[in-house]
Amino acid sequence: MSAHEPGQNASPLRLGIAGLGTVGTGTVKIIRKHAKLLSARCGRPVTITAVSARDRMKNRDLDLSDYDWEDDARALAVRDDIDVFVELIGGDEGIARASVTEALRAGKDVVTANKALLAIHGQELAELAEERGRVIRFEAAVAGGIPIIKSMTESLAGNQIRRVMGVMNGTCNYILTRMENGGLPYEAVFEEARQLGYLEADPTLDVGGIDASHKLAILAAIAFGTRPSFDAVEIEGIERVSIDDIRRAADMGYRIKLLGVAQMTARGLEQRMSPCLVPADSPLGQLQGGTNMVVVEGDSVGQIVLRGAGAGEGPTASAVMSDIVEIARGVRMPSFGQPARDLATPQAARTAVPAAYYIRLQLTDKPGALAKVATMLGDAGISIDRMRQYGHSETAGVAPVLIVTHKTTPEAIDHAMEALPRTGVIAGEPIELRIEEV
Amino acid sequence: MSAHEPGQNASPLRLGIAGLGTVGTGTVKIIRKHAKLLSARCGRPVTITAVSARDRMKNRDLDLSDYDWEDDARALAVRDDIDVFVELIGGDEGIARASVTEALRAGKDVVTANKALLAIHGQELAELAEERGRVIRFEAAVAGGIPIIKSMTESLAGNQIRRVMGVMNGTCNYILTRMENGGLPYEAVFEEARQLGYLEADPTLDVGGIDASHKLAILAAIAFGTRPSFDAVEIEGIERVSIDDIRRAADMGYRIKLLGVAQMTARGLEQRMSPCLVPADSPLGQLQGGTNMVVVEGDSVGQIVLRGAGAGEGPTASAVMSDIVEIARGVRMPSFGQPARDLATPQAARTAVPAAYYIRLQLTDKPGALAKVATMLGDAGISIDRMRQYGHSETAGVAPVLIVTHKTTPEAIDHAMEALPRTGVIAGEPIELRIEEV
Repeated sequence: MSAHEPGQNASPLRLGIAGLGTVGTGTVKIIRKHAKLLSARCGRPVTITAVSARDRMKNRDLDLSDYDWEDDARALAVRDDIDVFVELIGGDEGIARASVTEALRAGKDVVTANKALLAIHGQELAELAEERGRVIRFEAAVAGGIPIIKSMTESLAGNQIRRVMGVMNGTCNYILTRMENGGLPYEAVFEEARQLGYLEADPTLDVGGIDASHKLAILAAIAFGTRPSFDAVEIEGIERVSIDDIRRAADMGYRIKLLGVAQMTARGLEQRMSPCLVPADSPLGQLQGGTNMVVVEGDSVGQIVLRGAGAGEGPTASAVMSDIVEIARGVRMPSFGQPARDLATPQAARTAVPAAYYIRLQLTDKPGALAKVATMLGDAGISIDRMRQYGHSETAGVAPVLIVTHKTTPEAIDHAMEALPRTGVIAGEPIELRIEEV
Repeated sequence: MSAHEPGQNASPLRLGIAGLGTVGTGTVKIIRKHAKLLSARCGRPVTITAVSARDRMKNRDLDLSDYDWEDDARALAVRDDIDVFVELIGGDEGIARASVTEALRAGKDVVTANKALLAIHGQELAELAEERGRVIRFEAAVAGGIPIIKSMTESLAGNQIRRVMGVMNGTCNYILTRMENGGLPYEAVFEEARQLGYLEADPTLDVGGIDASHKLAILAAIAFGTRPSFDAVEIEGIERVSIDDIRRAADMGYRIKLLGVAQMTARGLEQRMSPCLVPADSPLGQLQGGTNMVVVEGDSVGQIVLRGAGAGEGPTASAVMSDIVEIARGVRMPSFGQPARDLATPQAARTAVPAAYYIRLQLTDKPGALAKVATMLGDAGISIDRMRQYGHSETAGVAPVLIVTHKTTPEAIDHAMEALPRTGVIAGEPIELRIEEV
């Protein structure tokens, strides 16, 4: 095949779209609005045969009368008159997983925006697709409209990838940005985000870092040619980021971001999602609100930065269309950039790459307290780059102390965080955040 | 075909590489270093059959003994034992154009980094390729390692593109950045760049905005489905940007960038390359040194920003490899995202989209001088957003005046720039720069 052979009279690519939430309705709208443009770009028309959703009666402000309706996505998935099953239901189990599996078994190609499904069952689904000579594509699963899957799978295919990292959950970035700009505590902004409808039904998916970790696991698989291994991501959410930390970090020229980082080291594949400090004037540091950013480092290309809307109807539907156009053009790409059966099983490694760390603690008002902390850190092999002690609070009788360390290992930091309370001069739990080199 | 069918025993993709400068040697190095990785990702080996360059004896720090040598790129282009002709010679005429044409006629696919060739002869070459069922691909021609061609042709194919813009000449951005950071005049930094080898043999290609305009014309063709029309780009280089303008712009929160902008309007296709003011804290404003950035605005995706190294051995060779891998995987994409014969002939339009403008002039020390200028601008329909008059220079007896206008048309600005000297209160020529909304 070739994109420029079939001409306008070629047979249409017939879609079955399951799920008519934000992304589903956005996808239908693009196909209706840009029928001519898509036909010119694909060399054939792209048409919708049938759709499916939970509630047929819901007002979607969308004319669906041209399409057959299926109450059951699984029935849609196996219809003889569709070529591609577009799964926009969501969730890593249930109807989404079942219908995608049945579509592949029935010889359909699949396009999905489902990060959880891909991160958890991606290996099995990619192998199933490839056994059947089908594809399962998922540009919309990671970072909304940002073309990161295609860029990594195709554009950077001549590179050994060194590191991939990103801010990939718009809700968390909204919360952190709003805390900083409004000077508001986490709980208040969380509640605000809930009322604005920015949070998933289970907000842990967002603020617990799980959604972003699904995305990171998918990127790591493509970057390093390894099976997606979501279970091996070290995950920490943004719940313990306080407005104090945001302010103190800003004082020292940093911003706090929920940052995912994956890199292959001699010890194995490190994947972690955690609140990190990044320089306020770096591209990642400047990211405001719901915008996403992915940074890829390759041995030839150096650092590539991609930035755009990480969610929302238009951007996510744009990414869904990227996969649909690819299939319409006859391009058949393996899910993770090489045959799924050839992907290596990664050796999961806890983060060992050294970094500078930010430590915040409450020092009690005792003589020699600061010296005790400094000595303890020195004993743990941690050397101090910068330290700031703020004035004692009159009510609590404690003084906030900020420390930025020189590069040290996560192991040494873990050790120090355990040992610090035993110095007897610390009130409460000390906080540590990694300062990621970006 | 499919990327996951052939397996490792499939026939290799055989390359003939013409041109062994920075990009050519970089490409050979990647193919040697990553043979296994490329084979896994392409489903077949990628091999080099033969190479060609002007001087066989030149020391390239590269073992070429495995490859046949051709003194003449045209002979290389038509060899029976190559599948893809990789043109890394450069120049829009001569041996580059001849060898690419002959390769396509001989039934070879072509990969090139040659922006001038594509901008000027892209239509003819794409039509030739498509008539023969071949492809000519050029990811490396625009913005080095940034995957902009693939992103626009494929990832954003579901969007109507509204505007594409970018900083795409690293040398110009280096010069402007260095002027600002070093407080140096244009001439001094130009000389510095020349000595560092940053300038093309004909420096007008860089500082005159021509190289960047080649890239803009290519992007516009993909964005708007129109024939590449380099001749219609309104081009202005950076030669008249003074350190004064850089400083005054910075005072008001702007940076000056050589910015290319293409957009389709009701009047036609506007393409312009010119020094523009952008907010200092915008992604474009923050671009330092040789880094490139392309910003694409689509009706669904919103704004996507891509950033990376715009030149250099590794990044450019990485982009060349993107095309080679695409062809090795059997993906056959039309050059400009749809059949070349279907591309519309664009109606070229002079820039008419209104913008704010920055005006700098030297006011003579006469009573009512500033009022005369303000009146004249008002008569031209231009309203003033901000105005600053600096102190009179004692030697010259003139005072620099800066004006930022509200949004106005380029036509009104042109009229004002002609009329200003006639007020009799201006010394020398006034300077105007567009403030692009980014």
